[in-house]
Formats: sequence, C-alpha cells, structure tokens
Amino acid sequence: MTIKNTEIQELLVGVDIGGTNTAIGIMDVNNKILFEDSFFTLPENGVDDFFNRLTNIIKKEYEKFKPNYLLGGIGLAAPSANYLSGAIESPANLKWGNVNLIEIMKKHFDVPVVILNDANAAALGEHNFGAAKYMKNFIVLTLGTGLGSGIFVDGHLLHGENGLAGELGHTIIDPDGRQCTCGRKGCLETYVSAIGIKRSVFHFLCNSDDKGELRNISYNDLTSKKISELARAHDPLAIKAFNYTGEIFGKALANVVTYYNPEAIILFGGLADSDDLLIDPTSFFFDKYLLNIYKGKVRILKSELQNGKAAVLGACSFAREIITKSIISV
Amino acid sequence: MTIKNTEIQELLVGVDIGGTNTAIGIMDVNNKILFEDSFFTLPENGVDDFFNRLTNIIKKEYEKFKPNYLLGGIGLAAPSANYLSGAIESPANLKWGNVNLIEIMKKHFDVPVVILNDANAAALGEHNFGAAKYMKNFIVLTLGTGLGSGIFVDGHLLHGENGLAGELGHTIIDPDGRQCTCGRKGCLETYVSAIGIKRSVFHFLCNSDDKGELRNISYNDLTSKKISELARAHDPLAIKAFNYTGEIFGKALANVVTYYNPEAIILFGGLADSDDLLIDPTSFFFDKYLLNIYKGKVRILKSELQNGKAAVLGACSFAREIITKSIISV
Repeated sequence: MTIKNTEIQELLVGVDIGGTNTAIGIMDVNNKILFEDSFFTLPENGVDDFFNRLTNIIKKEYEKFKPNYLLGGIGLAAPSANYLSGAIESPANLKWGNVNLIEIMKKHFDVPVVILNDANAAALGEHNFGAAKYMKNFIVLTLGTGLGSGIFVDGHLLHGENGLAGELGHTIIDPDGRQCTCGRKGCLETYVSAIGIKRSVFHFLCNSDDKGELRNISYNDLTSKKISELARAHDPLAIKAFNYTGEIFGKALANVVTYYNPEAIILFGGLADSDDLLIDPTSFFFDKYLLNIYKGKVRILKSELQNGKAAVLGACSFAREIITKSIISV
Repeated sequence: MTIKNTEIQELLVGVDIGGTNTAIGIMDVNNKILFEDSFFTLPENGVDDFFNRLTNIIKKEYEKFKPNYLLGGIGLAAPSANYLSGAIESPANLKWGNVNLIEIMKKHFDVPVVILNDANAAALGEHNFGAAKYMKNFIVLTLGTGLGSGIFVDGHLLHGENGLAGELGHTIIDPDGRQCTCGRKGCLETYVSAIGIKRSVFHFLCNSDDKGELRNISYNDLTSKKISELARAHDPLAIKAFNYTGEIFGKALANVVTYYNPEAIILFGGLADSDDLLIDPTSFFFDKYLLNIYKGKVRILKSELQNGKAAVLGACSFAREIITKSIISV
C-alpha cells in the first residue's frame, strides 16, 4: 500500500553496528531524535541472532509511532560496509564474513535501506550536525574497538574506486608489530583503539617494573575506561600506556596530513573521551612530526556529538539522501 | 593589443621544473607538440638565473611560431607548487624558499600563467593523454630526484584544504631513519627515489661485504641509471639496493591503498625506467602487505608517456583549463 499524505510524517532509522555495541536512533524529517537506544552486538552469536534482535527493536518502536509516522528509510553504518555492494566485507571486528545487510533488512522492511562504512557515517554526521559543519576537508577517526576513518575531501565524502577508501586503522605502522585481526601485523588500530591501549598496558606490564593496580587485572577484565581512570589517579603504567598511544597516534596523524591536507582531524569514540590523556601526547608528536608546509594549518578536535551519535545521525542523513519524495508504507 | 582571429592558432607552453632537469613543451590547441626541450635546472645558481634561462628559451622559440600562433597561456609544474597561492613553498629539492612563480612569469609574458604541483601535473597529463585515460581513482608517483605524488579521487584531482594534498614522498616510514631535505627523518623519498636508491647502495657498501664496481664509484659520481646497469649485469650490491628499495616501496604502496582505494598506481620518472628491477620486488611486497579487501583490485602500472612528458602535458592541460576563449596577445 502506497500512501501519500503530508499529514503523516516520515521517520528515518539510523543504526551504528559496532564490534561491541550497536546504537540505534529514530529521527523525524526535522532531525529531531524520537528514540535512542543501544545494545550489545554480541557478534559471536552470529548474523541471524543480531538481526533478529535489531529488527525486533525497530518494529517494536515503530509500532509506537504509528499511525502518525511512516518509516521512510533505514541507514545502516557498519565496519567495512560497502555502500556500492550493500554488503559488509569481512569486517575484522565482527567476523561475519561477507554479508549483504541490505538483503537481510529488506526481508523485514519494505523501505529503502542503505549501508555505509561506520566511520563514513560518522563523518557525514559530523559534517551535517557536528564539529565539521562548513568544512570541506576533514577526517573523522572513530576510536572504538578498532580505529575507523571517514574522509571528506574537496567538499565530498571520499569513496574511492570500490567504495573502500579510508581504512586508516589498517595502515601498517610496523610490519613486524602486533598481530591484527585482519591477518597482517602492525596495523595502526592494534596500537590506537580501545583494544590497542589495553595491549600497550600489557607491553608495559611486561617491560617495565612499575607497580600498581593494573598488575591485578586480567586482560579480559581490563577496559580502556579503567586505564583512563587509573591514569587520572596518576598510575604510572596507565600514564605510560596513554603516552605511548599518543606518540604512535601523533606520528600517524602527521603522515595522514600528507595524504589529504585536511583542515581538521576530528576524534571520537570511547578512547577519545580520555580527552587530554590522549590528545596532549598526540598533539605533541603530531606537531613534532608534521611536514613544515602544513604547520599551523590542521586542528585536532574532539567530536561535538554525543559519543556514538555521529554515525547514527550520519546513517539517517545517508538514508534521507536516497529516499524519494514519495512516502512508501512498510 | 587584443586580437581575436580564428586564423591565428593558440599556443600553450608547459614547463616541468625538476630538481635536476627542467622540461619544456609547446603545444597547439590540438595537443600537437611543436617544440620540446630540456635543460639543467641548476637550482644552486638561484631563482633569477633559472628564470632568465627559461624565459629566454620560451621567447626565442615563440618568435619562430609568430605570426601564425599566439601565446595563449603558460602552465608551470614544480615541486611544492601551490595552485592556490601561485607560489612554490619551500621545495626541498630546489632550496629557493617561497617564490611566487606567477609574478615572475608575468614580468615576461602578459598571458594567463598557472602553476601546479609537478606530480599533480603528471597525474593530469596521465589522465588526459596516458595510462589513466577514463580512470576515476588513480595515483601517479614520480620517481625523480625526490618522490612526488598526484592523486585523482572520485574523478577529480585532489587538492585538499590548502592545495597541498598528496605529499607522499614525505610520509615518514621510519622516524629514526634517513635525514631528509625537509628537516625530518625517514621520509619515503629518502628511500624510494633516484637519490634514495643511491643512499641504499651506500647502506650495503657499509653493511655487506659484497664486491663489485660500486666500491670504485664515489657518492657524487653514482647515478640511479648506473645502479640499474650494474643490476642488469648481476652486480650483487646493485641487486640488493633494488630489492631493498622495492620492499620499502611495496609496503608503502600497500598503505597508500588504504587511504585512497585507487584503481591503479602509475609510476614514472628515472627510477621507474628500471622496470622489472624495481617493479618486481615492489609488486611482491605490495601483494604481501595489501589488506585483503583490496586484493586483486589495484594495478601497478608504468606511465605510457615518454619520461618527463606527463607533467609538461599536464601543465599545458591545466593552462588551457583556465584560459578564456579570447586570445590575448603578449
């Protein structure tokens, strides 16, 4: 049944599927958020389990908005999502292999469904709603379980030949370095991410003789939030882990500038919430290693959007872009 | 005096100013090359000396084409040239500081003058005349005295916020590595360039005990062409230098793909003429280190244009882009 009725408002659903958490938002056409929630992704339980839970939430919430609202479209942000193919392509942090998310969602909802890389969604959200308003050249880095990147160049989202541009978490900074989930060694995200800083704590547990609470916590029990709390309480190991992460990150960002010449690099995600603990050493080494022609031209900023919201907003924006003016019923 | 006469054809001058050689071309509106030459840049003699020689050649050659042709515009390609400012900005291989090339040329020629980064010019030349025809996402790397890069993304030349995107020769691959002319250490071009491979020869002269003719040649007397000749003659040191260069280059190119997701990486310049000596080890390590999502999607190609010509052609193309349909006399 196709309904055209200007009294009935359109709803957009944005979903950000992360390695640990999945965030969901429902928005009206005036960018007003009507519903927000998040739940554990639990990728180890498989694709079907995840999509059963996700679609149940959307259906349940959507029921509450009927009949005043109609579902206009769904935008899904996910790691290694390819907007051209509609599939996620072997995302390292989900381990689902290649899965066509659009096909799955279409079984549940007869509305336009789009997918895009989670960090691209965050960049779009940041551009439309956050710190990157009016910017033409900027980079968004999401510091979650992994390190994602969304790139705006010369006024548009960078896609590349296969829709796979901007996988900066998988630039190799040390070919003999840490084993990465992608199968290679020394990728940036094995150092700079929530898991990366955990691994660095264990590097210093091994190589330093500093004492402290970190010697009582197992790898599986440790979180980046805990490392942050301990660093604020002057734990020497936790501070070393942040400085080490910042040094690697600052050097990496100096290199990133030589590729894109951005106006700003915008950070968000769990690890970016450590604020000065991460940003101070990062900025120090960024300035130190930046090529002279770029000095004073690039800012490192923190996202102005609530943690996790940028990708949900960006996914909604991307869905709106592709929706025709007709309102299609589900 | 302004002349409008369709009988009189327009000429475009393209100049590629390199650290060692400067190439010049004069082209008609049908892309026919009417004149080509090259001369030593001799940057150590200063800016004035260089531009006196350059403008004398252009004036002398232009006299020969008068009165059937009129000078329509001049495109200058140079390292660290910024098309927005009209200046070269502290190019490491010229050591002229900041010089506004457009102002200098305008003293000699009353026609539109544009400048652009030499590698961007090469990318434009390759796109309009060479191996990258019909490509939307590709990278051109110029392996001359340094390593320059020109980037096409999503169908256009990448400029970035300050016109300085794509300085891949100055990505740092080892912060404790070789001293670079930019003042930092370990830039890619200190390893992968005509000078980079010379330095690698001296690394192996120091660290290996291989014999051979290279032990009789001074640093200043050695050229990358000589290293290439010796490698073809199975000189073990020369072969080691090529393999070492290819290993570093292949790893670096695998990282480059994560930034731009190009369809092809196109090599040219003196060192690229070593063909398989460089490309075989480069391709081996490129394949080895490429992230799985890009495998089989990116080709490494050699320029289809005669060495040095791509940037001259690109500079001409860029000049034509900005010329109005009025023909302005000099």
